[in-house]
Amino acid sequence: MTSGTKIARLEAVPYRLPLHGELAWGAHSRLSAAEHVLVRVHLEDGTLGQAEAPPRPTIYGETVASIQGILAHLERQFVGLDIEDTAALEAVRGSVAHNLTARGALDMALWDARLQARGQSLFGVLLGPNTRVRASFILGIAAPGVMLAEARRVVESGVRVLKVKVGRDHRRDLEVIAALSAEFGDEVALYADSNETLTPDLAPAALDAMRDAGLMYVEEPLPVRLLRERQALRASGRLPIVADDSCFTPADLERELEFGTFDILNIKTARNGFTDSLAMLARAQACGKGVMIGSQASSGLGTLHAALLGTQAGVTEPCELSFVLKLRSDLLNAPIEFKDGYLDVAALAGHRIDEELLLAARV
Amino acid sequence: MTSGTKIARLEAVPYRLPLHGELAWGAHSRLSAAEHVLVRVHLEDGTLGQAEAPPRPTIYGETVASIQGILAHLERQFVGLDIEDTAALEAVRGSVAHNLTARGALDMALWDARLQARGQSLFGVLLGPNTRVRASFILGIAAPGVMLAEARRVVESGVRVLKVKVGRDHRRDLEVIAALSAEFGDEVALYADSNETLTPDLAPAALDAMRDAGLMYVEEPLPVRLLRERQALRASGRLPIVADDSCFTPADLERELEFGTFDILNIKTARNGFTDSLAMLARAQACGKGVMIGSQASSGLGTLHAALLGTQAGVTEPCELSFVLKLRSDLLNAPIEFKDGYLDVAALAGHRIDEELLLAARV
Repeated sequence: MTSGTKIARLEAVPYRLPLHGELAWGAHSRLSAAEHVLVRVHLEDGTLGQAEAPPRPTIYGETVASIQGILAHLERQFVGLDIEDTAALEAVRGSVAHNLTARGALDMALWDARLQARGQSLFGVLLGPNTRVRASFILGIAAPGVMLAEARRVVESGVRVLKVKVGRDHRRDLEVIAALSAEFGDEVALYADSNETLTPDLAPAALDAMRDAGLMYVEEPLPVRLLRERQALRASGRLPIVADDSCFTPADLERELEFGTFDILNIKTARNGFTDSLAMLARAQACGKGVMIGSQASSGLGTLHAALLGTQAGVTEPCELSFVLKLRSDLLNAPIEFKDGYLDVAALAGHRIDEELLLAARV
Repeated sequence: MTSGTKIARLEAVPYRLPLHGELAWGAHSRLSAAEHVLVRVHLEDGTLGQAEAPPRPTIYGETVASIQGILAHLERQFVGLDIEDTAALEAVRGSVAHNLTARGALDMALWDARLQARGQSLFGVLLGPNTRVRASFILGIAAPGVMLAEARRVVESGVRVLKVKVGRDHRRDLEVIAALSAEFGDEVALYADSNETLTPDLAPAALDAMRDAGLMYVEEPLPVRLLRERQALRASGRLPIVADDSCFTPADLERELEFGTFDILNIKTARNGFTDSLAMLARAQACGKGVMIGSQASSGLGTLHAALLGTQAGVTEPCELSFVLKLRSDLLNAPIEFKDGYLDVAALAGHRIDEELLLAARV
């Protein structure tokens, strides 16, 4: 172990960034602003590591208050630890259950602080071989006209893959998908995110219809708790299946690999940080799985971090890196822009938190 | 649906009760005080429903701050709902992930408020046929002498079943168990809680040794993530297995029933409230499983609520109702006492929160 500088304190800075419109994915799941938390690791030499934690009560059970609370709980054990003592840091970070986005952000802020303290940078160390990453946009459930208008705006902004949130109204969803196909033709690729809303009875026909409609794949068609049914649906080979809700953690991934429930793994740095995301990527790659890097509706900083993972070897699919197109403002000193379907990640190396923008967005 | 009074507000009151000694169950898991949260549901007619939420960062990822945060998050949707509209209340309570003790306490406080508003009481409605419940005490990991001294104190206080926390030092654990057997003989029944610390290689011999040492059963010998290995260990029939960590939720229970991993279900009102606990009890009973009611190191109010579940038909095993013996003070107006191994639950009907004791314990 290299000897480094020690952790002085942790900090949680809540901020609020208004959205263009809303993001909805269920009766109790909608956002009209990104109300996230900047997780900061301060070292004794003044180094500041930072990352974004997006509280999602309906998905991960976190709130702004829970992120502040778990950081305060962990701070007692972190203060005084050497930033290079990754084994000790991981033991503390892993000492609490759940709190995935808080712990994911903590991991990324620790990486950021560690590399800066060494005179390195996240971009210098983590930028992988595929520096241009194909970007996808998540189209939330809304009235068909609203969805189409948002799709137009996003395609005009340079994105060429849309993940369409679908739900219990399967007929309406297929109409929206047909309208999107008619609008964009081959220029835009589409896939569906069912968010566990299908049933074992309905899923086979629904997946056939999605395949016939030209969708690339479908994310989480069945409830995660139906392990055997998910295994059987994937074995039926109708449409590639993307694992998201079923693979929140490395332990989840092992179970899903054992039961053979998916074709493509959606890895989210927002919930797994760099350490677990890289481990999950290596594991999925070794098992011959496709991989995409997903977003938890991240603002700019979270997008930079996800994009760095998106450049790694083994990432085979478009990555959810364009949520910033839904933000009316951001914390970064420069915008994140898309061209011809791609995000040029290498060009983002100079992007950083602008303290004045943060001051304006703090709550 | 009967029309009732509406919810006016939710309240979270943190309090602190010092312990006799410590409770430890791992490197990052130890308590020197019960720092819990009184969850309150206020109705428009002034009715007050109350229950105890014990934050356990290492088990459920909750902190005092997260319990306050999730109640504040849910309050917006609860206010104005009719206390008799259980479908609407359950939809809101189920709209967030995790937060098990906050949501469990919320459920029990809703029951308390609903029954009071009807002119009924929890004891009037929930007291089951087995009004005397055999009580067990959880003996935390400590130096053998400390464990033996605590066991003596607890047995003198009327408890006749000890759940002994065991860990990675299997030889030392067996020595402690032998010392307890030598001390108490047939007067005291013993079982073990491995808290997922064994491995598939070591577990068969460890369970054989536990059986030979006279233990009744063992709780969670293997890591929960090792589903197939747990299935195989139970199929080997060495010692009855108690499910705890593997059955945090009704959905978990369904998976465990499908894979046949356990003999006895440990249901904890602290994490499942009354609604889910009763459903899990019915489900386990229908599947021919034994059932115990467990404690999350509850103080008096949580113990009353767990004890009410302990009186139900279908509860076959001793219940973890004696953590109050480890508290130096409590919030209740009268002590909870044990005699000849039993807790007389019917005798607790007049126990209630003492507002002066609460004022003294508030933080």
